[in-house]
Amino acid sequence: MRWIGDDAAVVRSRPFAVTSIDSIAEGVHFELSTHSPADVGWKALAQALSDLAAMGAGPGEVYVSLTLPGWFDREAVLELVGGMDQLAAASEMTLAGGDLIAASALVVTVSVTGWAEGEDRLVGRDGARPDQLVGVTGTLGASAAGLLLLRGAGAGTLQEEVLVRRHRRPEPRLAAGRALAAAGASAMIDLSDGLATDAGHVARLSATELRLELAELPIAAGVAEVAQAAGMEASALAATGGDDYELLVTFANERRDAAEEAAARAGAPLTWVGETRAGSGVALLDPGGAVRTGLSGFDHL
Amino acid sequence: MRWIGDDAAVVRSRPFAVTSIDSIAEGVHFELSTHSPADVGWKALAQALSDLAAMGAGPGEVYVSLTLPGWFDREAVLELVGGMDQLAAASEMTLAGGDLIAASALVVTVSVTGWAEGEDRLVGRDGARPDQLVGVTGTLGASAAGLLLLRGAGAGTLQEEVLVRRHRRPEPRLAAGRALAAAGASAMIDLSDGLATDAGHVARLSATELRLELAELPIAAGVAEVAQAAGMEASALAATGGDDYELLVTFANERRDAAEEAAARAGAPLTWVGETRAGSGVALLDPGGAVRTGLSGFDHL
Repeated sequence: MRWIGDDAAVVRSRPFAVTSIDSIAEGVHFELSTHSPADVGWKALAQALSDLAAMGAGPGEVYVSLTLPGWFDREAVLELVGGMDQLAAASEMTLAGGDLIAASALVVTVSVTGWAEGEDRLVGRDGARPDQLVGVTGTLGASAAGLLLLRGAGAGTLQEEVLVRRHRRPEPRLAAGRALAAAGASAMIDLSDGLATDAGHVARLSATELRLELAELPIAAGVAEVAQAAGMEASALAATGGDDYELLVTFANERRDAAEEAAARAGAPLTWVGETRAGSGVALLDPGGAVRTGLSGFDHL
Repeated sequence: MRWIGDDAAVVRSRPFAVTSIDSIAEGVHFELSTHSPADVGWKALAQALSDLAAMGAGPGEVYVSLTLPGWFDREAVLELVGGMDQLAAASEMTLAGGDLIAASALVVTVSVTGWAEGEDRLVGRDGARPDQLVGVTGTLGASAAGLLLLRGAGAGTLQEEVLVRRHRRPEPRLAAGRALAAAGASAMIDLSDGLATDAGHVARLSATELRLELAELPIAAGVAEVAQAAGMEASALAATGGDDYELLVTFANERRDAAEEAAARAGAPLTWVGETRAGSGVALLDPGGAVRTGLSGFDHL
């Protein structure tokens, strides 16, 4: 790039730009007592990239603004940017610009732009139709369980390190998002607020009911032990714990095989967890088919 | 746009994307005692758009992240976004996405993307060559004088309201930036840190000396009175006061007329304030031709 050190960054574009901006603040979205500066940089970028994944967008650029209190020293800043750069490189994203300012709170804002060759290659939240399949990538509940462990829940699980890592360094599903979009997903969203809440966004924008089987949720290994130690149900943690950054997708039945193959090739196993119906909202179903209500929400921090 | 309420915003692009991200924080870049929430929204966007102006980029999109302390109420947030939207509309920019988070400090981060049909239509900081003309748009010192007035400098100037407004609601020179780029500017930068400092960036990246005549600076009306009341020289305020968001440009001599016409058509009179030479750095010259040193820097807050 010719434009380093200039007023703005210049990049050659593709036909459609897909952009998301996200901020995280110390004491609100993370604590430095449980996250290294590198974790913070990684996490801020992961959250923004997950939005691109959920659209099926291709790689692009990262712009970052750091709001730094005086006590956050130069070395910590370099570590933070290093953590972000690590995820950027792994995601084929280019860190193209940024700003550093002084302020009383530590805030990391990331704006990411991915690219698409055509608007029809992108998937919104509004395309689910009745009588389709609902799937999720990977496993659920890991980030919430990791947070419980960081808060001191002693569960004695062998998965402790993996769960804590999934809380500190979530991996956005960029390759899976593109593969699922190409396989014909009708709607897609990333699981940042928790399955129940995010499924609700798809239901609302698609004007369709999503019916999800709690017994079918792909609960991450170790989550059951952590949930039990914390006096919670594992499926509740998986349905309401946020920050897993897995993808929820809907597919017409005839695309079932294509969807499974696409997800598997992208390294993100797909599990069918329910179906859509004419109607509205999200129904979480017990094994007997009864609708569960009052599932206790998980407090993210 | 089909994508409102989705994970990310989608826009149809042009061949080159020009992007800048900037943050301002309460207590560091502005005080709510002297700026309304609408001023803050305007100012945050103005600062980012000024970077696009300095490249000669065309209109595009605005993405905003607001970091909001609890005491900044809903009405104030709406006013802030309203002020930003006012400048966006006046600048043909579309407010396309955003994020709101809670934190202990009020921080406004704006990422702006403008577009260009070709890379050769854009102007960097690195293109100045020896024996070219150096010009600035509009007038200088107004924002610094406005800040001095807000701090209580009683100057009795009739320009008080105009100067304070230029501090609170600076107007980025987008049309002038595009016109000057089209007229063949060799280098361009926006005056955010002050003429002396910003000219230094052009000198360094262009590996050329910029020689500026203090007596030729287009000092805004009323600045002399405010400077006098504050015990400063007007030309010092104009050379070191920041946040005017005018443009500094360099042009080959043979493009002098074209540059003047382009700027005038864009509503931003151009004043020639010096020339470039083989060498390095910035020389600020007194009327007799002596190099001024030790010009006291202006403290922006």
